[in-house]
Amino acid sequence: MIEIERKFLVTSEDFKKQAFAKHEIAQGYLNSNPDRTVRIRIKGESGFLTIKGKNNASGVTRFEWETEIALMEAKPLLALCEKGIILKTRYEIRVGKHVFEVDVFHSDNDGLIIAEIELSSEEELFEKPNWLGKEVTNDNRFYNSYISQKPFKEW
Amino acid sequence: MIEIERKFLVTSEDFKKQAFAKHEIAQGYLNSNPDRTVRIRIKGESGFLTIKGKNNASGVTRFEWETEIALMEAKPLLALCEKGIILKTRYEIRVGKHVFEVDVFHSDNDGLIIAEIELSSEEELFEKPNWLGKEVTNDNRFYNSYISQKPFKEW
Repeated sequence: MIEIERKFLVTSEDFKKQAFAKHEIAQGYLNSNPDRTVRIRIKGESGFLTIKGKNNASGVTRFEWETEIALMEAKPLLALCEKGIILKTRYEIRVGKHVFEVDVFHSDNDGLIIAEIELSSEEELFEKPNWLGKEVTNDNRFYNSYISQKPFKEW
Repeated sequence: MIEIERKFLVTSEDFKKQAFAKHEIAQGYLNSNPDRTVRIRIKGESGFLTIKGKNNASGVTRFEWETEIALMEAKPLLALCEKGIILKTRYEIRVGKHVFEVDVFHSDNDGLIIAEIELSSEEELFEKPNWLGKEVTNDNRFYNSYISQKPFKEW
């Protein structure tokens, strides 16, 4: 129930050729407050309800709780969310021992691409692919909950 | 996924003698906004995550989605909630074909007692026990989400 994650900008679309999976995601927030975000996500034919706590001081570690829910339940819950539904395509890319999730945002967030890697400790080392850009783990603007309220086109 | 419910004040403690069940409840809100409340409840040894939408115009009907969660998952989620955990004892009383749930609030809400009845339609008739007082279905102050932010002792 602890998520350790680092985030990066992406400098080229080379990751697309290396992806082993690709999913369309729609997600919204029943609460976009970073102290206790409540997210509804539809990923392909699956639904998820995810609750996250505040980041720790390093910005890397965060409490996370998730449960899978039926698509037909996820739909009315997504409709109940705050304004600012996020649409994105997620690519999964294996790099060394890790998997990067690269989100290509659409609609009001067109042009934004973020890579995330989940680690088992804050100190864990990982291989950096050539398309990996600046780290933005500590920049709250790259929270999806923030983006949902302040879309990239308004930055 | 639709909840039809009416709420009443309670004029005496006679309901306690008629109760067939009694549970201690602790609950908090990951979002106390009545447009999309997200509630974590611990009832005895069970945990529940409940999401409710806004009431309709009559104040009686509301979207509701609930899932049971393990107690050990409910505890850190309750700790993540907004300030204002509600503690109450719930009595269940059978009256004719219906069950009234009577909540006796504690701590900052001491003195507050609310009876609720769930109906299958807004027009459904039901028997009124002698301890049932004024209807407060349309009074938003009697939402538990409101009470969590503005406890009864401050009214």
